[in-house]
Amino acid sequence: MVENFKIRQLKITSPFWQRYQKMVAQKAIPFQWKMISDQEKPEVTSTTVAGGASDTSSAINNLKIAAGKLKGHHHGMIFQDTDVYKWLETVAYSLKNYPDEKLKQLADQVVDLIADAQAPDGYLSTRYQIDTPNLKFQQLQQSHELYSMGHYIEAGVAYYQSTGNKAALTIAEKMADCIANNFGQENGKIHGYDGHPEIEMALAKLYDCTQNKKYLTLADYFVKIRGTEPDFFSQQNAKNDLKDDPFPDMRQAKDNYFFDDRPLKDEKMAQGHAVRVLYYLTGAAHVARLTNDKELLAATKRLWQDITQRQMYVTGNVGQTAVGEAFTCDYDLPNRTDYGETCASVAMTMFAKQMLASDLSGQYGDVIERELYNGALAGISLDGEHYFYANPLEIDENSQFNPASSHLSMRRLSWFSCACCPANITRLIASLSKYIYDYNDKDKYILLDQLISNQVELGNGIKVEVKSDLPWQGTVKIHFSIPAGEELNFKVRIPSWSEQTSFKLNNHEIKMAITDGIASCTIAEDAELEMNLDLSVRQITANPLVVADQGKVAFSRGPIIYCAEEVDNPGNYAAYSISNNSKLSSEFESNLLGGVTTLQVDNAQYSEMDKLYSKQADVKKQKTTMKLIPYYAWANREKGSMHVWIRQSED
Amino acid sequence: MVENFKIRQLKITSPFWQRYQKMVAQKAIPFQWKMISDQEKPEVTSTTVAGGASDTSSAINNLKIAAGKLKGHHHGMIFQDTDVYKWLETVAYSLKNYPDEKLKQLADQVVDLIADAQAPDGYLSTRYQIDTPNLKFQQLQQSHELYSMGHYIEAGVAYYQSTGNKAALTIAEKMADCIANNFGQENGKIHGYDGHPEIEMALAKLYDCTQNKKYLTLADYFVKIRGTEPDFFSQQNAKNDLKDDPFPDMRQAKDNYFFDDRPLKDEKMAQGHAVRVLYYLTGAAHVARLTNDKELLAATKRLWQDITQRQMYVTGNVGQTAVGEAFTCDYDLPNRTDYGETCASVAMTMFAKQMLASDLSGQYGDVIERELYNGALAGISLDGEHYFYANPLEIDENSQFNPASSHLSMRRLSWFSCACCPANITRLIASLSKYIYDYNDKDKYILLDQLISNQVELGNGIKVEVKSDLPWQGTVKIHFSIPAGEELNFKVRIPSWSEQTSFKLNNHEIKMAITDGIASCTIAEDAELEMNLDLSVRQITANPLVVADQGKVAFSRGPIIYCAEEVDNPGNYAAYSISNNSKLSSEFESNLLGGVTTLQVDNAQYSEMDKLYSKQADVKKQKTTMKLIPYYAWANREKGSMHVWIRQSED
Repeated sequence: MVENFKIRQLKITSPFWQRYQKMVAQKAIPFQWKMISDQEKPEVTSTTVAGGASDTSSAINNLKIAAGKLKGHHHGMIFQDTDVYKWLETVAYSLKNYPDEKLKQLADQVVDLIADAQAPDGYLSTRYQIDTPNLKFQQLQQSHELYSMGHYIEAGVAYYQSTGNKAALTIAEKMADCIANNFGQENGKIHGYDGHPEIEMALAKLYDCTQNKKYLTLADYFVKIRGTEPDFFSQQNAKNDLKDDPFPDMRQAKDNYFFDDRPLKDEKMAQGHAVRVLYYLTGAAHVARLTNDKELLAATKRLWQDITQRQMYVTGNVGQTAVGEAFTCDYDLPNRTDYGETCASVAMTMFAKQMLASDLSGQYGDVIERELYNGALAGISLDGEHYFYANPLEIDENSQFNPASSHLSMRRLSWFSCACCPANITRLIASLSKYIYDYNDKDKYILLDQLISNQVELGNGIKVEVKSDLPWQGTVKIHFSIPAGEELNFKVRIPSWSEQTSFKLNNHEIKMAITDGIASCTIAEDAELEMNLDLSVRQITANPLVVADQGKVAFSRGPIIYCAEEVDNPGNYAAYSISNNSKLSSEFESNLLGGVTTLQVDNAQYSEMDKLYSKQADVKKQKTTMKLIPYYAWANREKGSMHVWIRQSED
Repeated sequence: MVENFKIRQLKITSPFWQRYQKMVAQKAIPFQWKMISDQEKPEVTSTTVAGGASDTSSAINNLKIAAGKLKGHHHGMIFQDTDVYKWLETVAYSLKNYPDEKLKQLADQVVDLIADAQAPDGYLSTRYQIDTPNLKFQQLQQSHELYSMGHYIEAGVAYYQSTGNKAALTIAEKMADCIANNFGQENGKIHGYDGHPEIEMALAKLYDCTQNKKYLTLADYFVKIRGTEPDFFSQQNAKNDLKDDPFPDMRQAKDNYFFDDRPLKDEKMAQGHAVRVLYYLTGAAHVARLTNDKELLAATKRLWQDITQRQMYVTGNVGQTAVGEAFTCDYDLPNRTDYGETCASVAMTMFAKQMLASDLSGQYGDVIERELYNGALAGISLDGEHYFYANPLEIDENSQFNPASSHLSMRRLSWFSCACCPANITRLIASLSKYIYDYNDKDKYILLDQLISNQVELGNGIKVEVKSDLPWQGTVKIHFSIPAGEELNFKVRIPSWSEQTSFKLNNHEIKMAITDGIASCTIAEDAELEMNLDLSVRQITANPLVVADQGKVAFSRGPIIYCAEEVDNPGNYAAYSISNNSKLSSEFESNLLGGVTTLQVDNAQYSEMDKLYSKQADVKKQKTTMKLIPYYAWANREKGSMHVWIRQSED
């Protein structure tokens, strides 16, 4: 069945995103390949930072050992295979943006290697195959077996869809069949689930690709069994010797670490390991839509609200504590000790996309945009070869002295012993075209959710071209070519940061119908719609219940959240404040950080006091200026302090 | 030699402190005895809070086993003996305040038990004697043997000085002799030191009591060898099997945890376990004065400045992180995650007292007063039977959800598995008379350092009576009775919180000579000096570099720091703010919390906002009032949130 309004042949033309996608294609993918295939040693760095310093990856070698092409033991994390799979998934998306025959040949070889490593029954986890074959599916709280295979399934589907490589899809189907043969409610199967969710969303994607109902049923099973009684992990752990545990301490982790203290339908607050929570919610939202499960969808929306309205940093980063890489509780958003794992921001975009597909509302695109330009994007350097695992909102050299912030780094690392983040951010950037539109064939609409310049053709031949200089300028021109007899219900998200948005259709001002942050109009002939967004600099105030942000403001302009770096603002970052007299201006600097609009604050203050405690009158203030840069671009120049929330002076 | 200006026969007449000393005598001492002698089980409480919940102490039983009067194994912390010693030291001081023949008989029996438990060579650590005699002095990084004996020496000296019980002193001398026989620079002795300082100050006190030079030499040895190369602990640990370690994880602790990464003379910043740091500095300052070691004294002063001017909470609490119960770094003073161990505040008063004895300056008495009325005093409930180990500056029920604050409790516990704090705060309260005056016979002065009502007679027959209603009222009357031919150089600290202080001598205004916060005059005949202190409510601003306190104020009146408790201020504590329009008043409430002056804030604000992030204009404010109580008295009514630093509203 041809879907008339299906998005096809989408080409991103945004200079901002073309640069990033090109960097992924030309720099990050070759660099990551060198890392996972041990052709280069990562830079030596601190071992205290989140993710840990890496010696050697062995991710490709582990597959070779499992395939019988090399001798040796498994090396690295129990889920080391996924570094290869996420690299492959990045390649899959990137080949559509930047075709590259040599890269495709390499990726085809990797697919063949994975096929060789896969057991005849479809099972694939090199750690278990190589070193502990008798413990397969016996240690699911910690084994990451379904997590690992889930990541392959995502990669295999993407690679098949991008290149037509059928072997890549076959591996995924064999894996899913293996899992279906071992898990489920039937007698004799394991009535359990993986400690780290991922398989849920992978199976839902595999269903989308193959329309094989078995995969959706299995995805639904994993979504629903999580958190039910009797507690699966306690039962399975009780049968195993503690000394065989991959991470013995994890037996003591509370249920909420695994986000399985109760079924999702009864869950009210996001708690525990942030990436586990978000991968699970992404899968649950996808399954809820496919199965039209209202209770499940309501639960995902409840958690969505909790996270985005009570537990998310202004940059979009989530996960407030390094202990368990976890959510903590509502309105607890400390800046100097946050975790904000890059993977968690990537997961937020995936979760938002799934929610949007069920619930036409601007809030989802707002979060996707917040992640794309801020929380997630900060995870990769401008050179494409350095990555943050944890993303601080505030850091200086003293942060190393407090154990609550010693996981944070003022510099991106080249690689990690737990290297989940690098290929997660690159697969997001490479797959950006998936996030620009949503469409609905039944209601004959397309939604331009992300205001990123692109050219697209729909199934019915309608062509749309979006031109803008976002995130730096606020005019968006949308040109429609409508074949005779066709008609388009066009929807566009009005970003929540634009306080005044106006529209012109063919150069005449029009009023659009707006619902839940989404504007609509009907386009029945060739036309140009112009959207003018308010790119004024904004001073963001946090909810008064966020103690860490009290008396502070964050600056934004359009979708970009700003920060102050020491290289522009010398001295102690905490001494800076802005006041009611401060004057703000913005300027595009083409030679700075790949081209960024910076903010200037005149009449800022630099405050000092001799004593530790005294009275307000003893604070000596001098006038100063501040310069702010986009948060995503920090830590690409000299090493120094950085902070997002800036103190407001009392005068 | 009679010291003419020596303080003797001091009687505290302050109603505030009489109540506390009576509570220690009548409630806390009997209660603590029941705990350490297992006559009563502690209340069952959370196990996550600092200090840990206790099942049974066995502290007295351990001594009985070591004395051969009972069979069994050692139970409890490796330094469990010190719970008995600090109880005994509390009793020693308390018997001077409130003579009690039955209590003295019990304490005499405890002294006899300790003598029986002591090995013939003077050694005493029940854990090693009972369970690991072959490891005596072999695990000094973790063994706490000198720490334990140090605590006994302090107790033995105090009990001897209070009651004349010579056996108590003999035990202490035998211990010190045992240590001198085993440690020192001579060949064949251990060239090392204890992981937990304490012995340094104990030996200095023993020298003060006995004038036996050997003890001072040994104290000086321990002060100076700490932090020298080669690293003693690594060398000793290398000889031992890790499995025998009392706390195996501690081998991995950094040198700064033990405050021995370099000799004190080269140390610049307080780092590591706060109580270790402060016990060591107290001993070092004492030794520096006794040996007139200028370099050592300069080092203690440098660290004093670092702690009090860059690492101390406004309440006087110190130790910013639960990880290692430790200092972190300058200006890092997070409120919601602080540690502020009660023992560390007690240690600060001891350190300040030693500094004052070498350096006549008001800053030391200011800190002693800050601890006495705030940081230390908060460690004990008004009923004398509940204690804080860690003291939060800000807490609510959500604190349990963030691992960085889960060590904090909204309620004092009755006892701890590590019960170091209860008898530490009670020995401080019972020994208060030691902190009121300093004197110098050579310069013929006495310094009234703590403005606490008292009556005292000096060695030369001069009598001084101090009358005031501090901390609630600001008039201090000091009556002098001067025998014919005598003369007194009288000094008094002017508290740093009193912005305007005036003096009258025999009802005529006078100007006093003031140096470093200390006023002086000569009194040659009977006279009355009246001191009028400014008890206005003060709004304290923290140094701008203290990120956690930015845009916030703390309230104080006289020496008292205030806080807001939920029982008086319903709703979410973070929603409260004060503004420039807020009106302050104070009122003494005799029936509240044992009688306290409370602060009323009219025209305070309660702020709410629907969104997590928005603009200032979206914050909805309503007028409210706040009521503040002294910080030391919090957590004595209904359980609820508490905070010290209160947000300033922008308008």
